[in-house]
Amino acid sequence: MFREVKQNNKPLPVLAADEITKLIVDGVFKPGDRLPNEYELAQRLGVGRSTVREAIKLLVSQNVLEIHRGNGTFVCEQTGVAADPLGLKFIPGKKKLGLDLCEIRFMIEPKIAMLAAQNATPEEVDQMQALCDEIRDQIYAGENYGEKDRELHTLIATCTRNSVIPNLIPILNEAIPLFIDITRQQVKMETIQTHQAVVDAIRARDPQAAYDAMWQHLVDNKRSIEAIPDDV
Amino acid sequence: MFREVKQNNKPLPVLAADEITKLIVDGVFKPGDRLPNEYELAQRLGVGRSTVREAIKLLVSQNVLEIHRGNGTFVCEQTGVAADPLGLKFIPGKKKLGLDLCEIRFMIEPKIAMLAAQNATPEEVDQMQALCDEIRDQIYAGENYGEKDRELHTLIATCTRNSVIPNLIPILNEAIPLFIDITRQQVKMETIQTHQAVVDAIRARDPQAAYDAMWQHLVDNKRSIEAIPDDV
Repeated sequence: MFREVKQNNKPLPVLAADEITKLIVDGVFKPGDRLPNEYELAQRLGVGRSTVREAIKLLVSQNVLEIHRGNGTFVCEQTGVAADPLGLKFIPGKKKLGLDLCEIRFMIEPKIAMLAAQNATPEEVDQMQALCDEIRDQIYAGENYGEKDRELHTLIATCTRNSVIPNLIPILNEAIPLFIDITRQQVKMETIQTHQAVVDAIRARDPQAAYDAMWQHLVDNKRSIEAIPDDV
Repeated sequence: MFREVKQNNKPLPVLAADEITKLIVDGVFKPGDRLPNEYELAQRLGVGRSTVREAIKLLVSQNVLEIHRGNGTFVCEQTGVAADPLGLKFIPGKKKLGLDLCEIRFMIEPKIAMLAAQNATPEEVDQMQALCDEIRDQIYAGENYGEKDRELHTLIATCTRNSVIPNLIPILNEAIPLFIDITRQQVKMETIQTHQAVVDAIRARDPQAAYDAMWQHLVDNKRSIEAIPDDV
């Protein structure tokens, strides 16, 4: 089952990490599975236990594995998707970053809404409606609705049935709190209305209406970002 | 200059890595800069040298820092951008993955070509033409043109002047070799022609023609992927 790790020009822990990655790619270990213990992994990979420990640390930092204290090492559910895959925290100038992210959201999100209108199940549409209602209530209560907002956009992305689009979610996850932060969480009736319009169009299985409603949602977002001072 | 690292619920090396990251975000260390040596970093962060070593390893695995042997530790130029940011190597079914990536490229690349037509300098257009010529020569010679193909698409993305789009490049970097691999590098006249059409439109500063030419390039790509057997 394991091929023995041989030293070449890469450090041994990197080679061991590559080998564990290969076992996950090949489906030997699946998302959510627990890995064999350190001793067993070391024996089978033909390396020392300290090398295995280093390799596991590397894979934890790459969101491939996660350690559940006292319970072992597991394969992550969204294997290998970085928390900030585009390194956005290193881009200075938050207003410009907000507008640039908006430009990208215009490229992908209306089409995502369109695909969701073609593929969402009735149960998924009901979940979307529940999230819309929660966001509306949080906005009226003056609470931070960022988490639920991300959940709604994530659910819509999952309904596309495209295997890569749900992995684009971390990019949106970065954009939404940034947007709420720089617009100082103004209570925005537009958010409530355009979210509802997107979900109504998906429920009606009307791809063009879903596309248009998401487009309008992004136009509202963009206007709010444009209204903030330039030096943010 | 350095705030002292205090232990909370995160492991000490992670806190030290966060602190170094903050110094980069704040512009104290810039892309390409060399970091102070291990001893100095340890003193200023108020942690042990082994903690600094662990923190540096973490940041190297996240593409924030890179070690030049015998020369020190440097801040990466494309700071924090993962090599495979969407975890694509973990998605099984290469034909479906190819088509799903194609679906995303349709969402973003025609618009990227449009923005490049509005913003590219004459020097950048000349670089694009040189890459087109090299790709054409490699295709005629039956060589693998994946590297130059990635360079061309990367250059076009840089010309958008959007601060996030160049960080989307790793996604395209994943798509292009996959595409060439699964279509078994057929010599494709379409690739030569549509690359040239994209560059001609950018040189003419014609955004709509650039959009259309990139769209056609993707239509050709998609047809080639559709033609391969379903079990790839």
